[in-house]
Amino acid sequence: MDQADCLITNGTVVTMDAAGTCIEDGAVVVADGRIVWVGPARDAEAWRARAILDAQGGLIMPGLVNAHTHLPMSLFRGLADDLPLEQWLQQYIFPAEATHITPQSVSLGARLSLAEMLLGGTTTCCDGYFLAHSVAEAVESVGLRAVLGQGVIDFPAPGVPDPGQKIHTASEFASQWQGRSPLIQPSIFCHAPYTCSAETLRAAKQVAKKLGVHFQIHAAETQDEARQCRQTHGCSPVQYLNRLGLLDPGTLLVHAVWVDEDDIQLMAGSGVGVVHCPESNMKLASGIAPIPDMLACGIGVGLGTDGCASNNDLDLWSEMDMAAKLHKAHRLDPTVMGAATVLRMATIEGARAIGLEREIGSVEAGKQADLIVIDLNRPHLAPLYHCHSHLVYAVHAADVRHVMVSGRLLVRDRRLLTIDLEDVIREARQMGGKIVKVS
Amino acid sequence: MDQADCLITNGTVVTMDAAGTCIEDGAVVVADGRIVWVGPARDAEAWRARAILDAQGGLIMPGLVNAHTHLPMSLFRGLADDLPLEQWLQQYIFPAEATHITPQSVSLGARLSLAEMLLGGTTTCCDGYFLAHSVAEAVESVGLRAVLGQGVIDFPAPGVPDPGQKIHTASEFASQWQGRSPLIQPSIFCHAPYTCSAETLRAAKQVAKKLGVHFQIHAAETQDEARQCRQTHGCSPVQYLNRLGLLDPGTLLVHAVWVDEDDIQLMAGSGVGVVHCPESNMKLASGIAPIPDMLACGIGVGLGTDGCASNNDLDLWSEMDMAAKLHKAHRLDPTVMGAATVLRMATIEGARAIGLEREIGSVEAGKQADLIVIDLNRPHLAPLYHCHSHLVYAVHAADVRHVMVSGRLLVRDRRLLTIDLEDVIREARQMGGKIVKVS
Repeated sequence: MDQADCLITNGTVVTMDAAGTCIEDGAVVVADGRIVWVGPARDAEAWRARAILDAQGGLIMPGLVNAHTHLPMSLFRGLADDLPLEQWLQQYIFPAEATHITPQSVSLGARLSLAEMLLGGTTTCCDGYFLAHSVAEAVESVGLRAVLGQGVIDFPAPGVPDPGQKIHTASEFASQWQGRSPLIQPSIFCHAPYTCSAETLRAAKQVAKKLGVHFQIHAAETQDEARQCRQTHGCSPVQYLNRLGLLDPGTLLVHAVWVDEDDIQLMAGSGVGVVHCPESNMKLASGIAPIPDMLACGIGVGLGTDGCASNNDLDLWSEMDMAAKLHKAHRLDPTVMGAATVLRMATIEGARAIGLEREIGSVEAGKQADLIVIDLNRPHLAPLYHCHSHLVYAVHAADVRHVMVSGRLLVRDRRLLTIDLEDVIREARQMGGKIVKVS
Repeated sequence: MDQADCLITNGTVVTMDAAGTCIEDGAVVVADGRIVWVGPARDAEAWRARAILDAQGGLIMPGLVNAHTHLPMSLFRGLADDLPLEQWLQQYIFPAEATHITPQSVSLGARLSLAEMLLGGTTTCCDGYFLAHSVAEAVESVGLRAVLGQGVIDFPAPGVPDPGQKIHTASEFASQWQGRSPLIQPSIFCHAPYTCSAETLRAAKQVAKKLGVHFQIHAAETQDEARQCRQTHGCSPVQYLNRLGLLDPGTLLVHAVWVDEDDIQLMAGSGVGVVHCPESNMKLASGIAPIPDMLACGIGVGLGTDGCASNNDLDLWSEMDMAAKLHKAHRLDPTVMGAATVLRMATIEGARAIGLEREIGSVEAGKQADLIVIDLNRPHLAPLYHCHSHLVYAVHAADVRHVMVSGRLLVRDRRLLTIDLEDVIREARQMGGKIVKVS
């Protein structure tokens, strides 16, 4: 008999493998933090596991991948809404960041976000923010998986008062966290083509290449940005980034709303990854990214919530629902962005976009045991005809029952095991009280 | 000391009154099924209540109004998705209805939907379906508030094999339920201008007028419908209905996606109500209704989920989030459909659209005690800056903790008190097993 750490059984395994296999009455065997076996429960008897996790007739699937977050911004959730972008940024978000972002508040905001994400079944995120050390320490202490980037911007920023130090600070963060924790991949995060000079962008990408880490950047988010780019550089944001040599499989373009057919061809040819953030793009009225066209060209597209200041949550389930419905309405075509496609964006394709597709994103032997169990004993989840459709159109964050990262249980029966939730909420409320007084 | 049945205290009361008042540390006093007092908790001491409901720092607000549902269709949730409308209807929904819709299945589907709605804080719905007697009996047994219509259509339908009987059947339903239950308002529900002849529409509206009940109709839902109407009748669906004398404050137009400026003027002048169903319109790729223009003209617009076959749930929280975000993206304007406006659509304006604004939709003395309590002790709900924004952009159905209708507690601590949830889910699954085999 083979020895294992955990047997997850009595559920339907939604593998998210290339064939889209779902295994009714399935089981998953976990040993040393990895999936060692997946198959029908009746064939799992050869395994002797130290622990058994009963899915109680629910769904067993890979943890979700949130491919774009700003974790500490949960402290600004709902601080200001329904405003023009410039007013929102200049009157609320930037002043709040300038006054309230410290290593302590970054840690607090990150823990609040990690609590929300874990309870909702997100096991990996790709984050970019300032004071990234504090984010990384919070992530490490909680046990989630993350790609984390220290923000690079040509202005004084929290923790980087002298913009002359921005590349050095980002590089140092990435160097220090490379290989330090098996769950954390450092990266370089440039804010945007319009807030970083060509010199900054080139230097940042060079550091990322040298260290072999991912390079993230917001790009082509708003019509204004695209317009300004044409005025300043005579081309689209995507063409501009291409000209600077930034487009390759190690780069992640976040948003990519204002891209035309030529841009899409360029992106497809370069192997660059894209993160679609429909709720943020909708709420800030940035526009509707031509994701179906990108998918048709073979571009790898993940799904992201963006930060809580512009969403206002980190819920990938509502993000999936939104992604699946938005493009249908926009194109008057109910067949675009089918449920299986969108579910792949939130799992295996998200993993691919952030360079982790060999480790996570599907339930297959050899991969990391980043697994979640969905409770189907809810009135909005009966009856069940198709697992993929159910997960996109009916399952909510609160239906997530158990969450495991690298074989370690972080949520059991909807309870966080590595965060003191009461403490975090109390501290976040206190912080909110201070923030609202100054802004 | 004044005697009351229940004191709800220790929360912020989001009244949804005309001024949008929120009362921090507020309380609501309930007696004989009605709200008798609302104010600061410290002033509630004059009341002696038989029961105290502790909101534990959460939000106390009016129950949500789902202004368009087809309750029994929860049995078809996710039966088929991401298909062209005709294929979806002809190959899946119509055959499933023809084979499986019986008084028993209608009752089961309705109870399943009522369970979902109650747990998510919806206390009133406006429904249209066939075999409406069975729907009404289910609603009555559970204790929700509802406007219910027996479907009228020029084809053989479940329970009405002879279309010649359709007006008689609908009229009889409305007569029998008028005044029978304080929680149920009967109505007449015509399916659509393209499935009911002019004669049918006129006769149905006449019955509604005679009985003094609401008249509901799907209208201008798809581009095809609008095109066909122009070909057949030489005008838009709204103009056609107006020509038939159907537009008045007692009529509810559901969807109203394909309406132009002239239609909107006509609607505004007539006092007709509208139900916006963004998720259904998006998923079926029907289009994006010009709701901001309707609101600007003073048209009363409620919010509806539509049936579970096309959504795939009855969750008004995600519907609010969708409504608030969709129009911002579509119009590239972050200021349209602000949180307070959308929250009104799901409460007081929804109540107005279905003719119940004097009884429900806000927390004001004299109104029915249809109240819900939101649990804020969740990581995605901290910190809290603005109640209205929080409710639209961050609160989920699972955050609803207590639900009261007409002073009677139907959900306590997230548990249904008038439905055996386990039974309903088991039966729904069994039914699903039968449905999937035949379709």
